[in-house]
Amino acid sequence: MDVYEALYTTRAMRRVKRDSIPLDVQKRILDAAIRAPSGGNAQQWRFLLVDEADIKAKLGPIYRDCLEKLFVTLYKAQLDAAEAHPDRPESKQLMKMNRSASHLAENFEAYPLLLFGFCRFDPTGGSIFPSIWSAMLAARAEGVGCSLTSVMAYRADDVFSILGVPGNEGWQMHCCVTMGYPTGRWGVAPRLPVHAVASRNQWGADLGFEVNEPLWKG
Amino acid sequence: MDVYEALYTTRAMRRVKRDSIPLDVQKRILDAAIRAPSGGNAQQWRFLLVDEADIKAKLGPIYRDCLEKLFVTLYKAQLDAAEAHPDRPESKQLMKMNRSASHLAENFEAYPLLLFGFCRFDPTGGSIFPSIWSAMLAARAEGVGCSLTSVMAYRADDVFSILGVPGNEGWQMHCCVTMGYPTGRWGVAPRLPVHAVASRNQWGADLGFEVNEPLWKG
Repeated sequence: MDVYEALYTTRAMRRVKRDSIPLDVQKRILDAAIRAPSGGNAQQWRFLLVDEADIKAKLGPIYRDCLEKLFVTLYKAQLDAAEAHPDRPESKQLMKMNRSASHLAENFEAYPLLLFGFCRFDPTGGSIFPSIWSAMLAARAEGVGCSLTSVMAYRADDVFSILGVPGNEGWQMHCCVTMGYPTGRWGVAPRLPVHAVASRNQWGADLGFEVNEPLWKG
Repeated sequence: MDVYEALYTTRAMRRVKRDSIPLDVQKRILDAAIRAPSGGNAQQWRFLLVDEADIKAKLGPIYRDCLEKLFVTLYKAQLDAAEAHPDRPESKQLMKMNRSASHLAENFEAYPLLLFGFCRFDPTGGSIFPSIWSAMLAARAEGVGCSLTSVMAYRADDVFSILGVPGNEGWQMHCCVTMGYPTGRWGVAPRLPVHAVASRNQWGADLGFEVNEPLWKG
């Protein structure tokens, strides 16, 4: 697969089949992930795959609890606004994403594979998220759909206990990626255009170009 | 370019030519970057390209000061150990990276293009580093070499002032990526193998496979 196709079409895929992901595919995904950079090439990262039903059964209720926390705190204002004005385009998009996120929560135990990313001595996330995103791009190339979530950080202690992560070695849980073969289609997700979020030499200054349609169209 | 080639060979490229990067190439790099995911698809990100000599001249001394800080704090123990035992393979690798990082610092003003990444409402970095890494992978496909650094966070206030970033809107500077056409060759960088940094179902448990050679070899 062409790198641009992967970069443009690796969108959150939360509706997936229960089919398991062969070890050879997992191997290619993880081996691609560890080629990413980390600060000082220190590779103070750990990856944990979860495919055991017992473990997923313990994690599911925690995930749902964390998502609920997110909905009543960080996302509350946005969700209230969307409910008050359901016909606005941004409200429709938010409610669609919300249903998709709820689908993930309700079906957490059914995802065939979870990938947890841990890192230490990295306050920025810059030494773990390139590798995680590489895993998701490699997964895309393999036809495996992913969704990246950091919400379980609300109950990191419980997750550490379930996964046997030592609490005294400085590890931080940065994310959980759900993986599975998607039921839907890949496509380019909606985004604000480049010229709305980028500038040149000074904050807010003209970027020097506009991009009104995705440059890759398949 | 195949996505696996990009994932395996996008290594830090700090030795680059002074040739500027055409706007069309910059366009493709940034448009790929904004296809990455962000929490709740909120896209609370801003990208700032710097190519003006005056601005780079102000940033260079700050970059060098920050790197110096890093060398005498976080990296001190490692660097001292490498100097004490210069013949160890890990010492050689560290000193090589150190020379490369120093080269970047000494030549900061000569990089034709810098990309700064900002984000807000994202304590994890998970809503900015996928986009930054996408930019670097797209750059790889375009033949442009990058190096990712977060070290200027030590003097974020000064950088904000130089770039005109508002200090009261919650923006955090996550990184600066140097860009330029490399003088050297692309290749697969050394990494710890997957089975040394990944496990299955429980921390430290057997992963279920080993990968002793990079699975992509070109």
